[in-house]
Formats: sequence, C-alpha cells, structure tokens
Amino acid sequence: VKLSVVAERLGVVLEGDPHLEITGLAGLEDAGPEELSFISGSRYARVLERSRAGAVIAPPGLAVEARSCLRSSTPYSAFAQAVPLFFPSATEPAGIHPTALIAEDAELGEGVSVGPYVVIGACVRIGARTRLHAHAVLYGQATLGADCVVHARVVIHPRVSIGDRVVLHSGAVIGSEGFGFTLDSPSGAQRIPHRSGVEIADDVEIGANTTIDAAHPGHPRLGRPTPATRLGRGVKIDNQVQVGHGCVIGDATMICAQVGLAGCTVIGRDVYIAGQSGTKGHVTIADGGRIGGATSITADVEPGAWILGVVPGVERRAWARIVASWKRLPELLRRVRTLEERARERDEERA
Amino acid sequence: VKLSVVAERLGVVLEGDPHLEITGLAGLEDAGPEELSFISGSRYARVLERSRAGAVIAPPGLAVEARSCLRSSTPYSAFAQAVPLFFPSATEPAGIHPTALIAEDAELGEGVSVGPYVVIGACVRIGARTRLHAHAVLYGQATLGADCVVHARVVIHPRVSIGDRVVLHSGAVIGSEGFGFTLDSPSGAQRIPHRSGVEIADDVEIGANTTIDAAHPGHPRLGRPTPATRLGRGVKIDNQVQVGHGCVIGDATMICAQVGLAGCTVIGRDVYIAGQSGTKGHVTIADGGRIGGATSITADVEPGAWILGVVPGVERRAWARIVASWKRLPELLRRVRTLEERARERDEERA
Amino acid sequence: VKLSVVAERLGVVLEGDPHLEITGLAGLEDAGPEELSFISGSRYARVLERSRAGAVIAPPGLAVEARSCLRSSTPYSAFAQAVPLFFPSATEPAGIHPTALIAEDAELGEGVSVGPYVVIGACVRIGARTRLHAHAVLYGQATLGADCVVHARVVIHPRVSIGDRVVLHSGAVIGSEGFGFTLDSPSGAQRIPHRSGVEIADDVEIGANTTIDAAHPGHPRLGRPTPATRLGRGVKIDNQVQVGHGCVIGDATMICAQVGLAGCTVIGRDVYIAGQSGTKGHVTIADGGRIGGATSITADVEPGAWILGVVPGVERRAWARIVASWKRLPELLRRVRTLEERARERDEERA
Repeated sequence: VKLSVVAERLGVVLEGDPHLEITGLAGLEDAGPEELSFISGSRYARVLERSRAGAVIAPPGLAVEARSCLRSSTPYSAFAQAVPLFFPSATEPAGIHPTALIAEDAELGEGVSVGPYVVIGACVRIGARTRLHAHAVLYGQATLGADCVVHARVVIHPRVSIGDRVVLHSGAVIGSEGFGFTLDSPSGAQRIPHRSGVEIADDVEIGANTTIDAAHPGHPRLGRPTPATRLGRGVKIDNQVQVGHGCVIGDATMICAQVGLAGCTVIGRDVYIAGQSGTKGHVTIADGGRIGGATSITADVEPGAWILGVVPGVERRAWARIVASWKRLPELLRRVRTLEERARERDEERA
Repeated sequence: VKLSVVAERLGVVLEGDPHLEITGLAGLEDAGPEELSFISGSRYARVLERSRAGAVIAPPGLAVEARSCLRSSTPYSAFAQAVPLFFPSATEPAGIHPTALIAEDAELGEGVSVGPYVVIGACVRIGARTRLHAHAVLYGQATLGADCVVHARVVIHPRVSIGDRVVLHSGAVIGSEGFGFTLDSPSGAQRIPHRSGVEIADDVEIGANTTIDAAHPGHPRLGRPTPATRLGRGVKIDNQVQVGHGCVIGDATMICAQVGLAGCTVIGRDVYIAGQSGTKGHVTIADGGRIGGATSITADVEPGAWILGVVPGVERRAWARIVASWKRLPELLRRVRTLEERARERDEERA
Repeated sequence: VKLSVVAERLGVVLEGDPHLEITGLAGLEDAGPEELSFISGSRYARVLERSRAGAVIAPPGLAVEARSCLRSSTPYSAFAQAVPLFFPSATEPAGIHPTALIAEDAELGEGVSVGPYVVIGACVRIGARTRLHAHAVLYGQATLGADCVVHARVVIHPRVSIGDRVVLHSGAVIGSEGFGFTLDSPSGAQRIPHRSGVEIADDVEIGANTTIDAAHPGHPRLGRPTPATRLGRGVKIDNQVQVGHGCVIGDATMICAQVGLAGCTVIGRDVYIAGQSGTKGHVTIADGGRIGGATSITADVEPGAWILGVVPGVERRAWARIVASWKRLPELLRRVRTLEERARERDEERA
C-alpha cells in the first residue's frame, strides 16, 4: 500500500514520500524501513531515534527526522484505523444465511447480516447493518441497535435491550438469570425468576465468554421506571467478566478480564477496574475511581480514588514467614504496648 | 392483574380489596400504589411505613396498616412465584424442532421439548417435560431427569447423569475432561482420559459458562461404587464457576460466581461459598461451613466454621505502606524480642 | 478384559496370571480383586500392602507380593492408556455430517471428521484425521494440524494457526480480539483491530471455556517476523483461563484453571501456574518458574523460582484482627524504632 493511500484513507496530512510502499504496521521498536509505526508524544523521541520505521504517524510539530510522516493529533487512533488496510477481514457474514431461523415477527433493519445456524426468536428487533455471526442465539423479546457485531455463539436472553455499535464477543451470555433464590421456604432454595432484563447503551463492547445477568423485580430501581442490569454508553468489558444481577455501570467505564461484580454493584462513569478484581454486593464505586488488579472492593469508593489490594507473590519461604507473622500481629501490638508502658514507668521513676 | 387473581394463583389468603388492580412488582422502597411488594418480617416495619406499595405479601399477624395484603408464611417465596404472572415468558421451546438431530436410540420422555439445532447423541435418556433450548449439545451416553431446563448451547459430555428439575444455564459445560496428566513419561505430559463422569442430583442449578469436569478412574471413590464428580440435591452454582475433577459437593450447598474448586475438593451439606473464592485440591469443607468472598481455602474447614481471607482494597499509598511493612514483619518480631530481653535485663539489674 | 489382553494393548510385560479377568480400573485404595491399579514407586509400598487390587502396573523390580503385575517404567502413563479399554468412547464424530457447512476453498486432510452444524469458513486448512465436534465454528483464515480434537462449540477466529495433536475443549474461544483500545481520541475509547492472530504449537491442550486473545500489529514481536499470541509445544491450559493479547508461553508449561495472564506476559518453558493466579501485563516468568495458587505476579520471576502469594482463609474473627492490625503496621514500625532509640539513650546514659 502506498503511503499516500494510507494518508487518504485516514484523512490525514502526509509529509515526505507519497510513493513509499508500506508493507505492514509495527511498534517503533520492531518496525522496518517498509513499515508504518506511530509515536504518541515527545516522551518516545529516544525510541523514535533508534527506530528503523520507514514512516510514522506523529502529532503535529513533533520532529520525525528524515522519515516520511502522517500527521494526526490522535496518532494511536490513526494507527488503529490503519490496521484493516493491511489485515483485511474476509470473514464477515453477508446477507441472511439460509440456515438462519428467524421468527416471523422479528424485525430486521436494512442490511442486517445473519450467519449460519443463527436463531432469532419472537419479538426481536435488530437495527440496520447489524451483523450476527454463526450460531448466535436470541431467545426472543430483545432489541439490538444498528451497526452492532454479535460474534459466534453469543446468547441473548429475553428482555435485553442493546444500543447502537455494540460489539458482543464470542460466547458472551447476556441476560442469563441472576443467582437469586429465596431461602424462607422449608423446602430449600427457591428460584426468583429474573425477568427485569438488561439494558446496554451505545458503543459498548463485551468480551468473550463474559456473562451479564438479568435483574429481577425486587432489585432497586435507582430512580428508573424499572430495575435492570445497566451498562452505560461506551462501557468496555473484557473476557470472562461476571456482572451480577442489578449492577449499574456508568458511561465509559472499563472492566478488565475475570473481574466479578457481585449483585447490585453501582459503578460510576470513567471508572477503570483492572483484571481479576471483584466487588462485594451493593457497594458503590464513584466516578473516576481506579481499581488495581486482583483487588477486592468491600466498601464504597470515593470519586477519583485509586484503590489497590493486590498481594504481590514472593519467594515461597519469604511468603511463609510473612503469613506466619500475620497471625502474631495482634499479640505483637500488645507486646509493643507493654514495652512502651514499661519505658514510661522508667522515665517517671527517673524524673 | 386483580389482587384476588394473584392470591388465587399463589394459594394465599387475601386481606383487603380483592378488586385492586396490580400492575407490577417491586421492593418496598420502589413500589407504587398499583404495585405489589413483600415484607419478610417485623424488622422491615419502618421501611413498610414509608412504602407507597399498594399491596404487600406479609407473614400472618404482621401489621400492614391500611394496605391490602396477601398472607404467606414465606413472603419472599410467594413474591418470587408472582413474578411469572407479571412477566410472562414467551420464549420456551415447544415440541421437537425439525432441525434437532436426535440419535435413533435416544429415549425422550413425554412432553420433552427440543429447540433448534440441538444435537442429542447415542444412548441418551431424557425424562418427561424436560426442555432443551437452541444449540444444546449432548455428546451421548447421558441421562437427564424430568422437568429439567437446558439453556442455549449447554454442552453435556458422555457419562453424565442428571436428576429431575435441574437447570443448566447458557454455555455451561458438564463433564469436560479434567486437568489430569501423567508426568512420568519422558515424552512429556500425557492425558489421563477422564471417563468416570459426573453425577448431578435433583433440583440442582448450574450457572452460565460454568464448567464441571469429569473424574477419572484413579480418583477416590469415597465409598461409592465408582468415582465421579458429584453434586448433591439442591446444590446451586452461579456463573463461571470451575468444579475440578472428582469434587464432591453435598446437598443444598451454594457456590457463587467465579469460585474455583481444585480437583477432589470435598464439600459438605449446606455450605455457602461467596464469589471468587477457591480451594486447594483434596481439602474438605465440612457441613455448614461458610466461606467469604475472594477467600482461599488451603486447609480443611470444620463443621459450621466461618472462614474469611478477603484482602480489602485501600487507597494506593496506604496499600503500598502495608505491603512494604509485611516484608519487615519477621525482622520486627526479632526486634521486639530483643527489646523485651533488654527490658528484662534492666529489671533484673535493678532488683 | 483378560489381563493378557491389557498387557498386549499396553505393550508391557505380564507377570502372574494372564487369564485374570479385569473388570475395571481404580486407585490402590479403592481397587478390588478384579480390578487393575498402579504404583508409581516404592514410597507407596505400604498402600500397596493394604490394597485389595487384583493386579497392578508397577515399575520393574518393585515387589508386588502375590499379585499379578504389568511391568512398565511409566506406570501412571500405562494406567492412563488402559482407561479407553474399560471405558470405550462411542461419541466421536465420523465422516462429514451433512449439516456441516464447509467453505468451498477449505482444504480438509484425509480422514477428517466434521460433526453436525459445524461451520468452516473460507481459507481454512485442516490436517488429517482431525475431528471437529458438533457446533464448532471456524470463522476462516485458520490452519489446524493433524490429529487434533476440537470439542463442541469451540470458536476459532481468523489468523489462528494450530499444530498437530492439539485438543481444544468445549467452549474455548481462540483468537478473540484482545482488550485494546486507544484513548487519545476525544470521542472516547476506540478499538484497535487485533489482527495479528494466535499461534499454537503441537500437543497443546486448551480447557473448556478458556479464551485466548489475538495480538495486534503494535504488540512486541519478540524476535519473530510478526507479533502473535503464542503457545509453545506441549502447553497444557485448564478451564476458564484468560490469555491476554500478545502473551507468549514456552514449551511444556502448565496453567491451571481460572488463571489470568494480562497482555504481553512472557512465560518460559516448563513453568507451572496453579489455579486462580494472575500476572500483571508485560511481566516475564522465566523457565521452570513455579507459581502457587491464587498468587499475583507483579514483577519478573527468576528461572526456577517458586513464588507464592496465597492468603490462607482463617476463622473470621481472627481474620478481622489480622486485617485491622495491617493498618497499624507502619505506625507499629515507628513505635518500635522509638523504643529502640530510647533504649539506646538509656544505655549511653549508663555508660
């Protein structure tokens, strides 16, 4: 691909050789003379100096030496947009596959693609250009917006409503019944039917094999007409995350892999939760909160707070000593208190 | 729905206005004058006072003021039973879908429903009225009881036996091969075929994308004719739980999301394990044990014991100080001992 | 099955009664007089003494008393090989099922089996005798070697390359897009298309519902022509593991259930990672490292190091005291320092 073609597709200004043949993309460290890379800002100037990249995407004004350059105020985003030029995708479903089973009353917008063996139940509405890959299952009574991508064998249960440009990765389960049972009956735990659904706003992405449970009518409504598990606009959720019944997640929040949100967790906007963390039920993480990896949130988090609880692994004998000493901590506190009192008595005796 | 109709369906006594039109269900805090709520006991009396609920389900004798009331000794269970009246489900499979592939020798009980693209292999027996949703896969050599619900794309491997009224949520995998390899061969890890299966008793529920591994013949039999991974009657398992090969779980035990049970964990009756916890292999949790969230069980748990190990996340600088001080704990213990000895010497000198 | 038949199938020497009828397999503790067991070495001699096993597989030279015996230098592996003799599998797909949808340009080797409702997209190559179970989905642009087993509803995304004798368990997702977004755009997080794929070497096994994300072109190449998420020869991965974009895992490494590897984790050969552990992004675990269960790896691990970080759960009041004392640790360190200084002053005064 000629560099001029890349510039045109990205809609950016080219400085240097428009005829340069670009064969691929790479980070600054790896890129060769026929490859395009990017630099976010001047703090990577040293790396750029050493780089063999033939061309870079760089912010306006940043010196790129003798290299050809594409100018963008958002270089990393421009790099991301260049990926499909070099790695075209030939695996999108197109049209309605003859093996797709679509309920008679389902409404499909213009240009919707439905892959093989997809099942679409009653009362489903799907917006224009949304693509459903092979084996996706929509039980029924669900709404999907326009320009969504539903990957292979995603399951969407009833009473799920999904906005525009939402991406659901392979194996995600949306609207499964939450883990809610009544325990007042002598015959044992009895299921509470979870039929208050899930609401997912625009531009959300949900990772592979992630599960988002539906709420039930006894969950808090939080000022809305009905309770639901709710994901705000632009929420990004990674693989194997569990979102419990009745959770509410604010706009643009990011949740990394294997996080578990217990029921009715309330999370604000622009929160970041690193991998393998979890929340106790009914806690709140306010706007802008930042939760480290493998951290348990057991109490409310203030706006903008940065919370850590990761226990760093160490060499096993050192760890055994640390764990053994924990058990002696309450006793140690008492012993230090005794030493302090004795020292005070001595001081008083001397005075 | 008229309140009298709700009373009739739930089989409970109505006090107040039988003609009251109920439009929905909600918790006490949220319910409006046309909605039905519930109160479990007198400790929620204050909440009831403030509530705008038009009607409540309440235990006999509890004062509900000027409200219409349904009397039930199990109010929460009655509320749960009322859900389908207000949120009817139109998404159940009915009959055998023509795309279902059913082995010739499979035996299906009366009224079994099989959804589209379901695959049922050889030597499968399925009890009456069991419903299999779209894309469920039964490899073969498996038994399901009556009145089960198998959700979309559940996979059941060979040598799995399942009781009555069992619910398997979307994406669950039952009877996959456990993580067992022999390491005595110079050519590297060699798989042990896990063909001793899984036994699941009546009234069990298994969450979305949960995996229950099969046992192999070398696993302990625990007094049974053959080893197997075993789930007792009424066990409830949430989403994304991993049950390792050869685990045995007692009746009515509840296991929350993302818990991991290492191989051959033995769990008693009425145990409760909160989310993201895990067990070391071969440990035992005795009857009535209660395990907090994000807690690692590394040793046997006594009957009825309540075990915690969750590390509460704190502000990141405070956390850094705590972790740094751990490393100094063994040294600190020595320093305190030295101080105590010195103080004793002083005391002796003075005496 | 006659013991002589077992010996013949395993290719091992028989000592004792060749006509002994073996009805099953079991561990030494459980085996009865008609069952075959195994003993790895002399440290289990006591257990063997008490065992009722009618026959054992034992290393050459080890005394087995009055029992019939099969001699093997790898007794556990021989036992594993005997499993299919007693538990035959009748659930393998054979041939190409008529409902399988196979792209015209897909190339299938000799003896490939394709189960019902399998979807194989464009530009897929599959080696000889590989078996694809029901509902597997291959998007396209993927390569599988010979003698692989792909279980039910596995999803393989584009640009995945898989070696020979690889086993993918039910529900695994290979090559899903990694959790990578650019954050430099004012319109919010923007997806980086992850099109640098996944490379899986020979003899790898990947557990049920595990997810292996694809890399993107900006990931480190680590000396290879292109970046990719890479699993070396003989890697064994358990259920519900998350392997982030751009991870590289060395030969013969074993990773237990629910482990999470953050993006660009580099793991050497012969590493063992126990269940529920996790790594921070971009850390390295060198060859032979051993990571305990529920352990967070936040820094590079040296070759052969054994790292622990599991927090053992304890009785809840004891745990509350420990956690409370953590917060006082920095203060306690200061108090002990004060006591030490005061003691030194006293000593100086006395001198």
